[in-house]
Amino acid sequence: MQPSDKALVPFVSVDNMMRLIHHVGIEQMITELAAEIEADFKRWELFDKTPRVAAHSPHGVIELMPTSDGEAYGFKYVNGHPKNTTEGLQTVTAFGLLADVYTGYPTLLTEMTMLTALRTAATSALVGKYLAPKGATTMAMIGNGAQSEFQCLAFKALCGIDTVRLYDLDPRATGKCATNLAGKGLTVVSCKTAEEAIEGAQIITTCTADKKYATILTDNMVGPGVHINAIGGDCPGKTELHRDILLRSDIFVEYPEQTRIEGEIQALEPDHPVTEMWQVITGKAQGRRDAQQITLFDSVGFAIEDFSALRYIKKAIEGTAFFEPLDMLADPDDPRDLFGMLMRAK
Amino acid sequence: MQPSDKALVPFVSVDNMMRLIHHVGIEQMITELAAEIEADFKRWELFDKTPRVAAHSPHGVIELMPTSDGEAYGFKYVNGHPKNTTEGLQTVTAFGLLADVYTGYPTLLTEMTMLTALRTAATSALVGKYLAPKGATTMAMIGNGAQSEFQCLAFKALCGIDTVRLYDLDPRATGKCATNLAGKGLTVVSCKTAEEAIEGAQIITTCTADKKYATILTDNMVGPGVHINAIGGDCPGKTELHRDILLRSDIFVEYPEQTRIEGEIQALEPDHPVTEMWQVITGKAQGRRDAQQITLFDSVGFAIEDFSALRYIKKAIEGTAFFEPLDMLADPDDPRDLFGMLMRAK
Repeated sequence: MQPSDKALVPFVSVDNMMRLIHHVGIEQMITELAAEIEADFKRWELFDKTPRVAAHSPHGVIELMPTSDGEAYGFKYVNGHPKNTTEGLQTVTAFGLLADVYTGYPTLLTEMTMLTALRTAATSALVGKYLAPKGATTMAMIGNGAQSEFQCLAFKALCGIDTVRLYDLDPRATGKCATNLAGKGLTVVSCKTAEEAIEGAQIITTCTADKKYATILTDNMVGPGVHINAIGGDCPGKTELHRDILLRSDIFVEYPEQTRIEGEIQALEPDHPVTEMWQVITGKAQGRRDAQQITLFDSVGFAIEDFSALRYIKKAIEGTAFFEPLDMLADPDDPRDLFGMLMRAK
Repeated sequence: MQPSDKALVPFVSVDNMMRLIHHVGIEQMITELAAEIEADFKRWELFDKTPRVAAHSPHGVIELMPTSDGEAYGFKYVNGHPKNTTEGLQTVTAFGLLADVYTGYPTLLTEMTMLTALRTAATSALVGKYLAPKGATTMAMIGNGAQSEFQCLAFKALCGIDTVRLYDLDPRATGKCATNLAGKGLTVVSCKTAEEAIEGAQIITTCTADKKYATILTDNMVGPGVHINAIGGDCPGKTELHRDILLRSDIFVEYPEQTRIEGEIQALEPDHPVTEMWQVITGKAQGRRDAQQITLFDSVGFAIEDFSALRYIKKAIEGTAFFEPLDMLADPDDPRDLFGMLMRAK
């Protein structure tokens, strides 16, 4: 028995996602994702916004991140288990779903581990476009894990970075990142300390994975005029920057209600002033004011960015072979006759 | 390139779910599901309980229902769109996921439209076992939609019902239900009014789908001693029973915090006394007290029931062919080398 069209949900496997990325081109896809995210930031106010629904355990966290623009509904399932890497597993895995608000029927299921890496990098570089100092050419990449290469290529594609300076507590991670970036059009400098990495960098990206209050950057390391792209401080108890850096910076966030719980600013008073990025992008708020200012993007990742990415994938796979139909929804000819459908399947 | 074992999530399609149901036998499977749900009700206190996360629209609702017992994490995606039936679509479609709390990795993805029908029926009949009057043989089934046959078979399997009396506003629904139940070991009586349907019934199940305050049963229709299994009043603004019936009944619920928002008791004061079913099942609270008492199960469906069903399916498919491995999680050999995995896939 063939299920009806409505019952079949297009599914993008990891394998197909990788094919799609290579088909589009990785920098091109990050650029297109950034455009999609930028467009959604411009209509920020019409989205259903709710902090993610988190299930914490001693081992890590499992989160559901739903949102809707009134026509489409999307959510991402994502875990965060920093201890996983010691067991040969990913810290973060994810998948996502789009549905039609009008019928409630899912319209896309997709892997989102790869896609999250791309959308996080796209968001970072999109924000960098608005906040990084003019003419920035060099980025320090502190933390050379799964996200690092995507960040470097995104800042190359969107912000014109030509040099990245890598540092990780584990030199093998730096080696891996440098190897992966070879021949990608970037000058790659492997550094032995965080201090060395930020020398001459106009942009500093921090992306480390320990679930604890860490101090990747101390105050005296950060000179005037830089843009800090802080990715790794993204859940309660996990931060990367010394509090004094925060106090010298103008802080930009995705969604304050969530960032105050999960971001670097959990170290500050709950009323410490922050600027919402959607307001910068729509021109309602100022971004970078002058060349001396330290700008800090306290990024935690928000559901709307995943929504943008899901909608992008839904459009990108249309007419391609980069998906398979999944028999996920029971859809009997007579909607009241679920039981009859079951009996006829015998 | 073959994805690793960890990256492959067992997926139970609608087709495989139907095969599994027939393999186990529908009444047997409802009975086994009820045992699983009963066991989880007995350890109710250790579950993470949070009201479902609902996205309401003028067209319907899309909900995520997560829970965890500390070892496994589960959630269900479910929509409720009563207007769908007029467009040839299901009012409710659902799918669900189990994950390992220790790693955050998903361990099962399954259709849950069929499975929800079974778990809802299993929960109803399990509660009926505790609350229905002794020796009950006849059930009135009011609302003969997608859930109705499952309810009838569940009360047959678990409570010893031998006769069902069907009524629906739409006689075609009654005809469909009667046809589906033919030869299933029940005496089926099709009725022209709700009043006729409840004649001689010791159990009254109401399961209608309109998203509005409806009055399927009025006060004078309900005599002493019956058990009412109220399924259809399950979201804000959607109820089925006249308030006076509620006032004459002892009311039993799954999770008061959710039921007061979604169940029949949204028509009552917020402090109206209710009894939690897990307390009845563990012996901490009394169920049916005497033969005159009207018991009312104000059922809205709770995440723990889905969790029980998901765990049941995970066990049931082990060693069978009733699932397919889904390449849903990117899982590079070196967990920090997501980018390298992508490059090698080229």
